[in-house]
Amino acid sequence: MATSSGDQGQQNCCFQKWMHLQEVDLSELLQALTLSENGDRDVRLSQLVQKMIKHFEEYIQQRNRLSRDDVSAYFAPAWCTSLENSMLWIAGCRPSSFIRLVYALCGSEIESRLTEFLQGARTGDLGELTSAQLSDINTLQSKTIKEEEQLSGVLAGLQEDIADQPFVVIARTSSGASESNGDVERALDEHAKGMASMLEDADQLRISTLKEMISILTPVQAVDFLVASKKLHLCMHAWGLKRDHRHGRE
Amino acid sequence: MATSSGDQGQQNCCFQKWMHLQEVDLSELLQALTLSENGDRDVRLSQLVQKMIKHFEEYIQQRNRLSRDDVSAYFAPAWCTSLENSMLWIAGCRPSSFIRLVYALCGSEIESRLTEFLQGARTGDLGELTSAQLSDINTLQSKTIKEEEQLSGVLAGLQEDIADQPFVVIARTSSGASESNGDVERALDEHAKGMASMLEDADQLRISTLKEMISILTPVQAVDFLVASKKLHLCMHAWGLKRDHRHGRE
Repeated sequence: MATSSGDQGQQNCCFQKWMHLQEVDLSELLQALTLSENGDRDVRLSQLVQKMIKHFEEYIQQRNRLSRDDVSAYFAPAWCTSLENSMLWIAGCRPSSFIRLVYALCGSEIESRLTEFLQGARTGDLGELTSAQLSDINTLQSKTIKEEEQLSGVLAGLQEDIADQPFVVIARTSSGASESNGDVERALDEHAKGMASMLEDADQLRISTLKEMISILTPVQAVDFLVASKKLHLCMHAWGLKRDHRHGRE
Repeated sequence: MATSSGDQGQQNCCFQKWMHLQEVDLSELLQALTLSENGDRDVRLSQLVQKMIKHFEEYIQQRNRLSRDDVSAYFAPAWCTSLENSMLWIAGCRPSSFIRLVYALCGSEIESRLTEFLQGARTGDLGELTSAQLSDINTLQSKTIKEEEQLSGVLAGLQEDIADQPFVVIARTSSGASESNGDVERALDEHAKGMASMLEDADQLRISTLKEMISILTPVQAVDFLVASKKLHLCMHAWGLKRDHRHGRE
């Protein structure tokens, strides 16, 4: 296990860059939604969506690499707000929340469309999901929840392992908190390997769910979904900062 | 929602007092194990165990009261180490880990007893669980895991709610991170109420599991279990501090 004192700095920097990229990507996505509906619009939107997925994959790869040296830091990151940390599932968002978001967007667009229809106007495209798309999303939801539950079970097992050998015997025979113990270090390193591997699996599930969702949506719906997803993420961070500030955390 | 800037201080103080009490209680429990096996030993041990449960209940009551004003802080406490935070289930230990601990202690005592038996000596009493006790513990385990799963479902629901109304619509129409929005505050306060209520339920499950486990054990077994539990908790905190220090976190 690496012991660099700069771990925290690197982790924080990786996250800050990602949040900044989210803002840049959001601007680009919003800009793309203003493109006129000509022949190559869908191609251009698809390319943009693929670029966003690539950014997410690169971020995941980088944090997976960093987490191998210090996995615990990712389960309650110091660089996230308390509000965000209270919403974490295995160091990130729940993959099923992508699906919940699409349903929420679909519902809210149908609602606003009714008003616009009466006024002769129209907005986004997530209110126009076909029955085939809804069926695919429903299948994706069932599959995702099942895989989430499986990984939650792995997490539960790893958390319970702490109340078992070798930790229990080491703690029992421990004479004091400050003593140095090679057995503890080895046992914790071994346990951390399991945690890092589970984190990678959870990240893979997040990516694959996102990709599958996007493959179900039309290019303009996918952009609409990514816009809402990034806005929600950025807002959650901003709302959390405000609450942390109010409670004396900076 | 209260807005005292001293929230963080009060929460931290509550935790530090609890950790100190754990050390004091541990000394008292260890002292009690040296009592000679006369007629009133079991009565004295039982009284001590009840005192420890009362301390736990008082701590839970205090943090439940504090968490109503700032529940997010308890899901990744700044006063805990990253190692501890990565092991959290709804802002505390998994109730099922009490049972896992008893099984681990039982196993390790049977192992060490074999050596001692051959040497004509003996140690703790958790290696002497009767088949009736093992059956009761097994029933308690099934029941606890079921209740844990139920609460995990409540947590999943609350986490997914963030990707739904009203948050999605507020985020979507948000013009920037710094804007003030009464709708956000109300929605987050409402959501926090659900989180605080779930935290109280999880704490009640922790207490009831602990009490039921103790009611199954003999007084000396219960003391043995509490000693191991407190040692493990104190060691985890100490091990986590060491790792945080190594990774540049203080």
